[in-house]
Amino acid sequence: MDARYTELKARLGEVNDLQRASSFLGWDQHVKMPSGGGAVRAEQSATIDRLAHEAFIAPEIGRLLDALEGFEESQPYDSVEASLVRVTRRDWEKARRVPSELQAEISRTSALAMPAWVEARKTQDFSLFLPHLRKALELRHRYIDCFEPTGDPYDILLDDYEHGTTTAEVAAVFERLKQAQVPLVAEVGATRNGDERPVRGGPFPIERQREFELRVIRAFGYTDESWRIDTAVHPFASGMGTRDIRLTTRYFEENLDGLFATMHEFGHGLYEHGVDQALERSPLASGVSLGLHESQSRMWENLVGRSLPFWRHFYPALRETFPEALGGVELDEWFRSVNWVEPSLIRVESDEATYNLHVILRFELEQEMLAGTVDLEELPAIWNERMLSYLGVEPPTVAQGVLQDMHWAIGAIGYFPTYALGNVISAQIWERIERELPDLPAEVEQGEFGSLAVWLRENLHHYGRKFTPKETLERVVGGPIDPEPYLRYLRNKMGDLYGVAV
Amino acid sequence: MDARYTELKARLGEVNDLQRASSFLGWDQHVKMPSGGGAVRAEQSATIDRLAHEAFIAPEIGRLLDALEGFEESQPYDSVEASLVRVTRRDWEKARRVPSELQAEISRTSALAMPAWVEARKTQDFSLFLPHLRKALELRHRYIDCFEPTGDPYDILLDDYEHGTTTAEVAAVFERLKQAQVPLVAEVGATRNGDERPVRGGPFPIERQREFELRVIRAFGYTDESWRIDTAVHPFASGMGTRDIRLTTRYFEENLDGLFATMHEFGHGLYEHGVDQALERSPLASGVSLGLHESQSRMWENLVGRSLPFWRHFYPALRETFPEALGGVELDEWFRSVNWVEPSLIRVESDEATYNLHVILRFELEQEMLAGTVDLEELPAIWNERMLSYLGVEPPTVAQGVLQDMHWAIGAIGYFPTYALGNVISAQIWERIERELPDLPAEVEQGEFGSLAVWLRENLHHYGRKFTPKETLERVVGGPIDPEPYLRYLRNKMGDLYGVAV
Repeated sequence: MDARYTELKARLGEVNDLQRASSFLGWDQHVKMPSGGGAVRAEQSATIDRLAHEAFIAPEIGRLLDALEGFEESQPYDSVEASLVRVTRRDWEKARRVPSELQAEISRTSALAMPAWVEARKTQDFSLFLPHLRKALELRHRYIDCFEPTGDPYDILLDDYEHGTTTAEVAAVFERLKQAQVPLVAEVGATRNGDERPVRGGPFPIERQREFELRVIRAFGYTDESWRIDTAVHPFASGMGTRDIRLTTRYFEENLDGLFATMHEFGHGLYEHGVDQALERSPLASGVSLGLHESQSRMWENLVGRSLPFWRHFYPALRETFPEALGGVELDEWFRSVNWVEPSLIRVESDEATYNLHVILRFELEQEMLAGTVDLEELPAIWNERMLSYLGVEPPTVAQGVLQDMHWAIGAIGYFPTYALGNVISAQIWERIERELPDLPAEVEQGEFGSLAVWLRENLHHYGRKFTPKETLERVVGGPIDPEPYLRYLRNKMGDLYGVAV
Repeated sequence: MDARYTELKARLGEVNDLQRASSFLGWDQHVKMPSGGGAVRAEQSATIDRLAHEAFIAPEIGRLLDALEGFEESQPYDSVEASLVRVTRRDWEKARRVPSELQAEISRTSALAMPAWVEARKTQDFSLFLPHLRKALELRHRYIDCFEPTGDPYDILLDDYEHGTTTAEVAAVFERLKQAQVPLVAEVGATRNGDERPVRGGPFPIERQREFELRVIRAFGYTDESWRIDTAVHPFASGMGTRDIRLTTRYFEENLDGLFATMHEFGHGLYEHGVDQALERSPLASGVSLGLHESQSRMWENLVGRSLPFWRHFYPALRETFPEALGGVELDEWFRSVNWVEPSLIRVESDEATYNLHVILRFELEQEMLAGTVDLEELPAIWNERMLSYLGVEPPTVAQGVLQDMHWAIGAIGYFPTYALGNVISAQIWERIERELPDLPAEVEQGEFGSLAVWLRENLHHYGRKFTPKETLERVVGGPIDPEPYLRYLRNKMGDLYGVAV
């Protein structure tokens, strides 16, 4: 092995150690830290982040990358070695373009914007948040200016979350989704029996929720040896390595939304867990993009966790666990309930048929904000108009409208689209799985998820970041992103559930 | 303020951030990490440790320290500024003396010795551990050779844990303890009513133990805002900052040892919590030595937690919490039970009258091992002989004898004495507290610990590492280390409990 490759690998290992430590400080902050620890923790996180960044953008890394060009070419494209050099070069060139002063200003600004966002939500006063949004947009423009223009400035932002995918590509997919989903949601509404309501109210005692969800994710592949699960206000998944996966979830006495959050985060965790262990401690040791990642969380949450075979297996146990809430509810009613479709105000609470529309609205507004074609003071009103036109509902407050998500407060513009891309990709992968694992529905009905987990590991997870997101998708589904499988899936499901024409 | 001081402080802040992150990775490893995460975690910890060490021993720090000599002299000795420069200079000069290769070899060796120690304990085969002990001793000698000789090589090792205290000073204190405690233990044994046994067996359901101990430590000053408590195999305390204190403890169904472990770790935690917040993120932001630290843990565990006023307050609630175990046990019997004196084999389970003798035995053996005056193969036998002579009991197995502690496996020679120094210092401080807070016993009987906690903060905790351990002790008790208060305390307590002559 080339000694310079070994050196590069050692340096990148250290960078990875620092990055993981930083993400771990974040995990702790949201999960375990006493609130008094916040001030010192902010300094600790900033130090570790800065050291990770400095260690990565060091000129020595660039010299090693240059020196390793011949070595890279001598190795197969899909080898760990060639991939490590190739992906590191791309990351390194990108990371060096943003001056540390700008990076620091971005961090400071979002640190100030977060409490302003919280306050604006609390007081229902968008104007408190407005100057922070203006500042965030200004910084996004300065960030964009660090890179070669591509024709659409939004491309630069999108690239951070979904490398290589262009705004135009996303817009084409979303146009098709909108065109199909807006009328579909209206159709479902028209078929609704006015008396039926989803099962809510519980009680679902939290201790029993914990036991039940552990039963579910253990069947999925969760083990105490490599995973843990804790509670957080906003559920997320993170990992210190492929054998140390940390899920978080939340619980409500009055519904089982927490179970779906857990299955969602399990999907993220399983992706990280399935990355080839040969990539451990390297820049390749994680999921390849937010869209691909979300495809995995949505798959376990929806395509598995809201499917009839899944509930055929688990519903008897669920009913036994919560006899007060579910004693009088039959499987069929429960299945309809967890697949309840109804336009609503809040993205994170929305169903499979409406979710993408929430995302598309944000994607469109982000592009307009970036282009300066929208008056920011009018944003709450514009938000509400679009909600009415796409979903037929209008937020009564800004907290239920334009201020519902924290993304813009932390400057994360370009992030939202990946949620809907995740839905789209999940169905593309699922169609291939249905062809290759014809027995899967029967297995799921028996509570067996092993062949699904192995398939995902072998066909997606183990690659980690070796390939680009597009190359990865091509390997998994044999083609580019395509909204049709998701629309077919949705239409079929709505056909089964609500009798809309398929 | 001198700009170079500001720069020094910023650099030391980063070093502290890295050190805390490292200690935090350790906390997580023992408390939260899934076992599968161990291999990657070892690399992550090694990276962070190395970066912390490199950042601290950097020549720039030395140049700043040189440049700040005049500044230091211009500031009062007990100012934060002068103390920071003074203590950093001492730490820096010490840290630079040990080559990183040696440091790395020490880490590697103890990483290998730990599993060998575990295996040797399991198979009761000292010979499995012997080569690792030899290697550890060899490395200790190489470590000692990095420093100026002081006449006694053990001084160098002791200095890491109790800076400035010499082997001869410790030996003098321990000689006095041994001379008084060996006969005292025998006297207590002679007074024993053969039928009486301590209250054991429980049941003490663990959930109720948790609730009860929280009630106790909340009365001591624990708050959810700045503390947390978790479970670990070997209890310890650590902190990410003065407002993020983490205790660990353990529980047994059949006894309440866990409660005393919790009060012990609370004492450590309160010391870290009480450090002046102006010292946060600096090398001064922690307890000054292991001996002083242990004085605080032993104080809350024993001088408070095994006192009659404490149990007058808490016993009724304890009895109500565990009616099955304690329904028939009166306060007096309980008080005698938690102060049960009886020679035993295991240091960590031993009582206030015998504990120091376990430590003295180790201190003597360590010096002999270091001087090469003991045949290491004979160590188990020598251990057993000493146990018989100091405590009148003989370990039936090596796991209950020479292999009971992990300290030698990790190369921590010179550490043990600080446990007994902690006992001694705790009683010195307590005598001063008794003079200055005459109402304390009455307050404790009311469950009030506020004036004690404030006294400790103002007279000890808030100093952090500003002064040397000796200077600190001088400030707290007005003199040097002195075994007499502890012996007085012990004799008085044994007088009350067992009627031995005071």
